[in-house]
Amino acid sequence: MKTGFIGLGRMGSAMAANLLKAGHDVTVFNRSPEKSRSLLELGAHQATSIAEACDGETVITMLADDAALTHVALTNEGIVGKLSKGAIHISMSTISVALSKELAQAHARAGQRFVAAPVFGRPEAAAAAKLFIVTAGDAAAVEACQPLLGAMGQKVFSIGTEPAAANLVKLSGNFLLASAIEALGEAIALVGKAGIDAHAYVDLLTSTIFPAPAYKTYGGLIADNKFQPANFSAPLGFKDIRLTLAAAESLRVPMPLGSLLHARFLRVLAHGGDNLDWAAIGGLATQDAREH
Amino acid sequence: MKTGFIGLGRMGSAMAANLLKAGHDVTVFNRSPEKSRSLLELGAHQATSIAEACDGETVITMLADDAALTHVALTNEGIVGKLSKGAIHISMSTISVALSKELAQAHARAGQRFVAAPVFGRPEAAAAAKLFIVTAGDAAAVEACQPLLGAMGQKVFSIGTEPAAANLVKLSGNFLLASAIEALGEAIALVGKAGIDAHAYVDLLTSTIFPAPAYKTYGGLIADNKFQPANFSAPLGFKDIRLTLAAAESLRVPMPLGSLLHARFLRVLAHGGDNLDWAAIGGLATQDAREH
Amino acid sequence: MKTGFIGLGRMGSAMAANLLKAGHDVTVFNRSPEKSRSLLELGAHQATSIAEACDGETVITMLADDAALTHVALTNEGIVGKLSKGAIHISMSTISVALSKELAQAHARAGQRFVAAPVFGRPEAAAAAKLFIVTAGDAAAVEACQPLLGAMGQKVFSIGTEPAAANLVKLSGNFLLASAIEALGEAIALVGKAGIDAHAYVDLLTSTIFPAPAYKTYGGLIADNKFQPANFSAPLGFKDIRLTLAAAESLRVPMPLGSLLHARFLRVLAHGGDNLDWAAIGGLATQDAREH
Amino acid sequence: MKTGFIGLGRMGSAMAANLLKAGHDVTVFNRSPEKSRSLLELGAHQATSIAEACDGETVITMLADDAALTHVALTNEGIVGKLSKGAIHISMSTISVALSKELAQAHARAGQRFVAAPVFGRPEAAAAAKLFIVTAGDAAAVEACQPLLGAMGQKVFSIGTEPAAANLVKLSGNFLLASAIEALGEAIALVGKAGIDAHAYVDLLTSTIFPAPAYKTYGGLIADNKFQPANFSAPLGFKDIRLTLAAAESLRVPMPLGSLLHARFLRVLAHGGDNLDWAAIGGLATQDAREH
Repeated sequence: MKTGFIGLGRMGSAMAANLLKAGHDVTVFNRSPEKSRSLLELGAHQATSIAEACDGETVITMLADDAALTHVALTNEGIVGKLSKGAIHISMSTISVALSKELAQAHARAGQRFVAAPVFGRPEAAAAAKLFIVTAGDAAAVEACQPLLGAMGQKVFSIGTEPAAANLVKLSGNFLLASAIEALGEAIALVGKAGIDAHAYVDLLTSTIFPAPAYKTYGGLIADNKFQPANFSAPLGFKDIRLTLAAAESLRVPMPLGSLLHARFLRVLAHGGDNLDWAAIGGLATQDAREH
Repeated sequence: MKTGFIGLGRMGSAMAANLLKAGHDVTVFNRSPEKSRSLLELGAHQATSIAEACDGETVITMLADDAALTHVALTNEGIVGKLSKGAIHISMSTISVALSKELAQAHARAGQRFVAAPVFGRPEAAAAAKLFIVTAGDAAAVEACQPLLGAMGQKVFSIGTEPAAANLVKLSGNFLLASAIEALGEAIALVGKAGIDAHAYVDLLTSTIFPAPAYKTYGGLIADNKFQPANFSAPLGFKDIRLTLAAAESLRVPMPLGSLLHARFLRVLAHGGDNLDWAAIGGLATQDAREH
Repeated sequence: MKTGFIGLGRMGSAMAANLLKAGHDVTVFNRSPEKSRSLLELGAHQATSIAEACDGETVITMLADDAALTHVALTNEGIVGKLSKGAIHISMSTISVALSKELAQAHARAGQRFVAAPVFGRPEAAAAAKLFIVTAGDAAAVEACQPLLGAMGQKVFSIGTEPAAANLVKLSGNFLLASAIEALGEAIALVGKAGIDAHAYVDLLTSTIFPAPAYKTYGGLIADNKFQPANFSAPLGFKDIRLTLAAAESLRVPMPLGSLLHARFLRVLAHGGDNLDWAAIGGLATQDAREH
Repeated sequence: MKTGFIGLGRMGSAMAANLLKAGHDVTVFNRSPEKSRSLLELGAHQATSIAEACDGETVITMLADDAALTHVALTNEGIVGKLSKGAIHISMSTISVALSKELAQAHARAGQRFVAAPVFGRPEAAAAAKLFIVTAGDAAAVEACQPLLGAMGQKVFSIGTEPAAANLVKLSGNFLLASAIEALGEAIALVGKAGIDAHAYVDLLTSTIFPAPAYKTYGGLIADNKFQPANFSAPLGFKDIRLTLAAAESLRVPMPLGSLLHARFLRVLAHGGDNLDWAAIGGLATQDAREH
């Protein structure tokens, strides 16, 4: 298929590369054009404006946050202004429920289609085309995107016709991951202070009650007490907890554990954690338990 | 091996049956003797006193709580008084770190050996000999218990020479499970109020970021909003959170998520939750979010 | 002094009346003009547009929230567009730190002055000219406002030259009040379930360790378990906790108790608490402790 | 009246001195007899055993914790064994609800009377006979104690016939104080990071919405960020929160703010806070907000 791809960070570059490898016709656009180089070698076309990335049947966005996507999609020279009628904007970024609703409306008014398709997976998973992709939107539109989504992920889940639902599921997933990090952090602080080896403990957990990669990855980082370099940074993690709580506010759903995580992330950030992995919240309990 | 087995609840009966099936010579004792019947058919001997259950190389206890084990082990006619020198008390109950330390000392003074071997797994896992067993104690003693432990579990983890360490690991594991329940409860309340199907959501989670049986089991119970009958009851879950926090107090380890869980369980119990599964704490968020 | 007054809710009407009684020349404006009647009898002039309320040396705003003040001050026909150079906008509403900063900049660009002067006190205190007023802004501007502020409050505190500081102090004060409500709610749930009379308990507290009107007022409401009619509504209380946490986010200050309050308010609102007094969060603990 | 007095710490010594100044006949007993010296100069008699302190109409205990009072009252040579029939044990220590109930039963079985009379007030208040005293017990017994209580406090509140109720009220009062400390700590962290002077802020609060000595005292300590020397130590504060939560557990009352305080105190104690004032929990928010 012919698609545009906007946003070539660590995730986006890997995803666009997989589209190219699968034979799709991809036109890439990024604020910093030097990020496109390796993709051009794989056969990508270079767009010099958002408009040029919008001349296919679809355009994919994979950007850092609401502000970036708003800028790319909703301003005068943005996607809503440039995409053809009937074409599809596939938004794969982790964004707020509110922005997803706003985009759905804006595209509808412009006669375009909007599919939300956020992903689960760290950059290595993106590179290996092993992402899990959650989609929502008009059924025909979602169906039309499958060739692209299938090239980037190991499994695609379609969960409804309201695009914002996919964004909410993605946010809630990050809330669950952060909860697991906090729980592991407290458990490791406890057994660690009792003299039990933290790595053996994590091995035990992940070969028994928690055979999930997340427990292995984050348990390992906490046991190492090593949160640099960041695979997924604390400010991005905090953003997702904030967006989860914002959605919970709109829906009036109290989330006391979500609230606890909010305070945990603020503490990591106050202490200069901008470059740490979001698993750093899992180091706080050990820090608090340690004798000074 | 010749062993006594004290405590024939749902877990204990299943474990003793597996010992018999594996050819061990088992003498069972229970406060309510009618619980022994099916085990006698499998070849068990019936003890009419704790003393009679203590005449082998080992005696296994699988009781509900500290009070029950204290009564069985530390009173005049109890295990410490009756077990032969050199014989081993294998304590498989989920008990406090403090009681485990007290038992280790009492057995040492009496010239006996003490191994803590708490288990992870619900009754079905016990029946299928699929328990995970965490042991700690003197290396030779732990080694001597392997034929028994191997008949009851799918895997045995040895994590040190201080028996109480195994009990702490077990408690921390239940803390992690309760944390996962609370997190799932909040996430399901959130997506549920947005109109997303809770079962589809749990399927998505457990086939992507949380491929762990615990997320499947508890996510399913919360999605069903059905917490009866209890496989593991709320009062037992609360007991384990209390014991976790008691251990954290002794070690001076702050556990804010543990504290949150403490308040959640008290709420379930205040509202008459004695017969509910401990997953009922995962129903509170939905209850709080529901319009009255 | 000649002043405009915009916003004639329960607080604003009482405050404007006190200005008139003190001899000031007050021009009132409100979206719903019928609210002006009693003030006109006291000698107020009726403005039919925001512009007409802006032709004095000062204009006072006392509005419900950020949205209302943004609409009144920052739109084309608003205060920033209409106020004379050198005149002062006295903002007495409880608003966000962010909006206060934005207003300060907008007024500065327009050659006008901006003083934040939020108040502590419920409507009865406003009627009795017993408000506590916290001001911040350019020293000369704050000084110029004293005749007006003195007519509305029993005491005026000047806390700096940056207007937003006064707004932050106000928000933090409401956070402290909500914290006291939550604490009283939990304490009353505890002693109440033990059979101690809640009113006698509140009397004891407020004649010993907490001789503060807030403990008397809120303790009484919680002891009565009666949260209607609202003197200060739950949605307004929630708004202030959200604004406090928003300021804490910008400043990177973790507030775990603030986070707990956030979840408490959401629960009251989810359960249809829009018309309840914000003290209703103090009823949750008793609700949770009550046997069903 | 003729009374014994057991427990001559900072509080007890000051209280016993006031009894002597009021003309009562006081026999003092303390583990470390040198603490009696100044009281002997005021006319006290020195007891060399608990029994000697038990030969009056009443005996007062003012001890550090449950363990100390259990030792003094419930062992073979203790108060229950030595007090005359009909005589009254006035327990003024801050102890658990459970111990209070146990003592009430033990004294009843021994034909003695038991009055709980815990106090609010720091050592200076004890010295000035300005304590607030909360009593509960048999009405005639409480009445009989009034001459003694009146000499030690500025006001006596009688709240029922079940002694343990007074202990619960006392514990709940300390929970409320700790809650105020936490709230002040978070508020001061917030306004402090915005550049507002913390002392001016506390002055503002305590001359407006919180005119209570506790807010003045603890606000001042937090603004100073100075928690040494301790007037009331962090371990004692933690003990009271633990006893509050223990009572809440028995009664099945969820106290999420109480749980948060539990984690806060553990953190202070983990970091070597044994010699700090309990107000040190109010310093944690500033610590968390500070850039490293």
